[in-house]
Order: sequence, then structure tokens, then C-alpha cells
Amino acid sequence: MRVIELPEILAALDEAEALAAVEDGFRRLSAGEVQVMAVGHLAFGDPPGDCHVKGAWVAGDPVFVVKLATSFYRNPQAGLETSDGFMAVVSATTGEVQAILHDRGRLTDLRTAMAGAIAARCIARPGAKVLGVVGAGIQGRLQAELVARTLGLETTLVWARDAARAAEAATALGAEAVALEALCARADLIVTTTPSTTPILTADMVRPGARIVAVGADAPGKRELELALTGRARLVVDSRPQCVAHGEAGWAVRAGLVDEADLIELGDLLARPIRFADDETVVADLTGVGVQDVQIAKLAWRRLAG
Amino acid sequence: MRVIELPEILAALDEAEALAAVEDGFRRLSAGEVQVMAVGHLAFGDPPGDCHVKGAWVAGDPVFVVKLATSFYRNPQAGLETSDGFMAVVSATTGEVQAILHDRGRLTDLRTAMAGAIAARCIARPGAKVLGVVGAGIQGRLQAELVARTLGLETTLVWARDAARAAEAATALGAEAVALEALCARADLIVTTTPSTTPILTADMVRPGARIVAVGADAPGKRELELALTGRARLVVDSRPQCVAHGEAGWAVRAGLVDEADLIELGDLLARPIRFADDETVVADLTGVGVQDVQIAKLAWRRLAG
Repeated sequence: MRVIELPEILAALDEAEALAAVEDGFRRLSAGEVQVMAVGHLAFGDPPGDCHVKGAWVAGDPVFVVKLATSFYRNPQAGLETSDGFMAVVSATTGEVQAILHDRGRLTDLRTAMAGAIAARCIARPGAKVLGVVGAGIQGRLQAELVARTLGLETTLVWARDAARAAEAATALGAEAVALEALCARADLIVTTTPSTTPILTADMVRPGARIVAVGADAPGKRELELALTGRARLVVDSRPQCVAHGEAGWAVRAGLVDEADLIELGDLLARPIRFADDETVVADLTGVGVQDVQIAKLAWRRLAG
Repeated sequence: MRVIELPEILAALDEAEALAAVEDGFRRLSAGEVQVMAVGHLAFGDPPGDCHVKGAWVAGDPVFVVKLATSFYRNPQAGLETSDGFMAVVSATTGEVQAILHDRGRLTDLRTAMAGAIAARCIARPGAKVLGVVGAGIQGRLQAELVARTLGLETTLVWARDAARAAEAATALGAEAVALEALCARADLIVTTTPSTTPILTADMVRPGARIVAVGADAPGKRELELALTGRARLVVDSRPQCVAHGEAGWAVRAGLVDEADLIELGDLLARPIRFADDETVVADLTGVGVQDVQIAKLAWRRLAG
């Protein structure tokens, strides 16, 4: 069992290759070629924190991957990173633990940002120029960079509840810190990245034809979008059962506003692209699936195992 | 993040202390003081193998534990150990991964054997002298040793489908390899430890008043006991929801032979012992719960962290 620390992991990753691998993972998932573990989740109250455990095996692969990731939002107050965790690469033929990629949550951050970029590419209107990012944490910054770069967007707007953090993120990103209403009015594509448990974006704020990638609702109780907004939108989901269980889509399905059968899985959308009408509101609800971890960890490990 | 290998882990464990810790874990679980993760499971067909991921946090503890354990039954044919895996010890206040205890599945084996001994102590008839062990794998051997030692049993009988393996185990254990019928007729307490998916023990084989600890049914589809046997027995379970989902108890509940409400949780039985009538058949259905992993890993880590 090799233990690989973060710098070596990052050095082994190529962004374009990783994007392609994660995209392929979504296709395989929707094609029924991935065995997915039940998601493990522990929630802590004081201080508040989360632990997610996800695992999956892509049929035929020599290895499977189980990922543990923690987020403790008050860590920065104590000078600690918010996230920690690892991905275990395990032989699918002997069960031997081949490697612990001690990515400290970073591969999760990256594959989440990559899912955002992949979904954004599928749902963005042609000619989109302005990106609006809601949230100024790690995920907000990563999405801002990767989505803008991948889609070739020209302008990035940032909003966060904490104006000072928003300003700081905007400076770091060469972006513009704006009011939430201004962000919604100007952005062609909005990415929401907060751990909110109450809706932040309302239907009134968002113009018809808006394209929204929501990555915050990764656990039960979390939500960033008002029901009136998801209820009127076409909904793309990374995993139908998981998004119904705890994504933005779940709130809409439970409220009877959306039929589960109408949810479009991202992997299906990648395999059979849809040209959405310009005035259709489209929401991509990304809760994070184990196959993303598998794909990115495999890629790193393939290089590292050499 | 420290990585601790097996010899150091084993050296840090004291058997009596670990037994007490696991027992305390069952009490805490039944008292509602444990946050348990959904069990993660992946199944492999060729070669056949399993991966289980379990995690739990005992309220108030400074750490939680997530365990990954694999079993690939054909590994020995290639000169490999059947099991591998690790337990991750993670801070419940910062999410920092403090340690990977690379126990290679051994702590799982030990805590499973300890649960067997704890359950056996709760359900054995006073004056029990003869132990019958079904299965001659690692778990069969561990249960044979630990249950006999903990309960002070005098004679151990072993049966396994593979007579040569049974004979070998019997020699190693100072036990007697016998036919299954003879084992059932003579044993005061039977422990079943196979990965069977079809019943091995039938109601006819087992005398009234038999006490059975069944540890094999740790995943959907597995079972060692005939329905006619569990249907007539008092059923003790390590976790009510988990045993209903995939233990021996689940088969009986789904068949309408047993009411879920009549299942007795081991932790409740430890807190409020029951004196079973001598002619009552009692089955302890142990599917393995994350709190066992937490308790044994915490104990090792407390010593190792110094």
C-alpha cells in the first residue's frame, strides 16, 4: 500500500485528460456500467462539519476507488484547511489496497469543478460571455477559473454573503464583485457553490433562459435554489437517484413540481446532446458521484504506479 | 496523517480491553448514541469478492472511524491473504485524517470474533461445555478460540464443507472435526461463520434450546440458517435496521415469520439481560456494525497516538 501525498498527486494530473476522464465517467454511469456504493455521510454539529464517503467501480476496471472527504467550515478560523480526505485505490481482482491518495479533499474539489465545467458546456447558451459565481469558497474559485477557461467566457462576476471574501476572491480571479441581483441580471451562466440550507437564488432574480449549475446541495438538507426556480426549469442531474434523494431536484420532485422521469442525466445528455431553446431555464444539479472520484483517482494512480 | 501497519496495531491492542470496548459500543448503539453511516458495499463476480465500507461516530468522541474491508475468497489460491483493508481515524472536530490503520482486515476479523463472544456470553445456557463451529476460515478459527476462551468452554467441534480444511483447523485449534449433524447434536453453542448464500443449518438438525451465533450473513443474499430455524427462535440482532436489511433476521421478517419489533438488539440485551428458558432456541444474528470498528480502532489509536 503506497501513500501518495498531495503535491505528487497534483503533479501527476493533466487537466484536459482529467476532464475527459470525468466526462467519460458520467457517460458510463448513465449507461449503467458503474457499480456505485451507497453514499456514506456523517454530520457534526459543533463545530459544524461533514464527512462524505463515496465509492464506485467501473465495470471491467482493474481497480475501484473509495473516497473519504471532510469539510469543517470553521477550520480557517483556527488556521486549518477546510477540507481533508483521501482516495483509496483498491484492486478489483484481489481486494488489495494499492494506494492511499492523500489528496486532502483536493481531488474532490477538482472533480467537482470539472463536473461543473462539463455540465456548463452542455447547458450554456451558444455565445455566452458572462459567468456569475455564487460563493467565494474554494469551490467558487475553482469553478470560476475552470468554467471560464473551459467555455472561453470573458467576464466573471462573484457574489458571496460575506462581501469582504467576495471582494478578495474577485481580486484573486480578476473578476468583479457585484450584488446578487446584478449577478443574476448580467450573467449568461450562473454557478452556485455554497453550503446553504436555504434558497439563495429566487425565480424573480433569474431571467428566463438562465443557465444554472448548482453544486452546493451535496447532502440532505442543503439547497441553493428556490422551488419556483427549479420548478420551472429543465433539470439536468448527475445521478437521478442521488439528486432525488438530496439534490435541488429532490426538493422539486418532493414538492410535486417535477416528475422524476423528466430529469435528464448528465451522462445521457453527453451521449445525446440537447439544444435547449434560448428562453428555457436550465438547471444542472450536481450532487457529486463516486464515479467522478474513480475517474480522477485512476488517472493519477495510473501515472504514479507507472 | 500517520500510517500504522498491522504488527504495530496488534501490539497496541489488549484483548480484554477491546472486548469491553466493543461491548460498550453495542450498548451505545442501542442507546441511540451512535451516528452510523450507510453501509457501502461493492460486489465483484470474477473473481468473487466483496468490499464493505462502514463508518460511525460515538457522540462526544474526539474522533470517528471509517473502515474499508475487502474479502476475495480465491486469493489463497494465488498465495494471497483473503482480506485487506484499513480503518481511517478522523477528527470529529476538524475532519483531519489522523491515521490510517492498515489492519489488512484483521481488526474487522477481531471485532467480529469479539461480537461473537459477546453475543455468545449473552445467549449461552449456563453450564454450556461444547462449542460447535461451522466454517474453517479465519473467522471460524478466531471464533473457536475467542468464544471458547471467553466462555470457558471445554470442547470445540468443527465442521466445514471442505473436510480437509476442517481437519486442518481442528488440529490447529485442538478441536475435533465432525459431521455437521454430530456437531449440531453435541454442541451447546453453535457459531456459524461461512459466506454461504443457502441455508446450512436446518431446523431438524438443531435441538430445541440450541444457541446459535450466526456471523456469516454480512451482505445481501447471504444466509446460513433455514427459515424454519430462525422462524422458531428468539432473535438477537446487532442492529435492527441492518439485520432486517440483510441479516438472517431479514429473511425471517420478509417471510412474515418474525415481527421486526420482536428482534432484540444486542446492546439492549447487554443493558437488560434476559434469562432465556432452557428449551428456547436463540439465534444471535451479527451482521457487523460500524461502531465495532470505531471502538477497536479508537482503542488502538489511543495507545499509538501516545
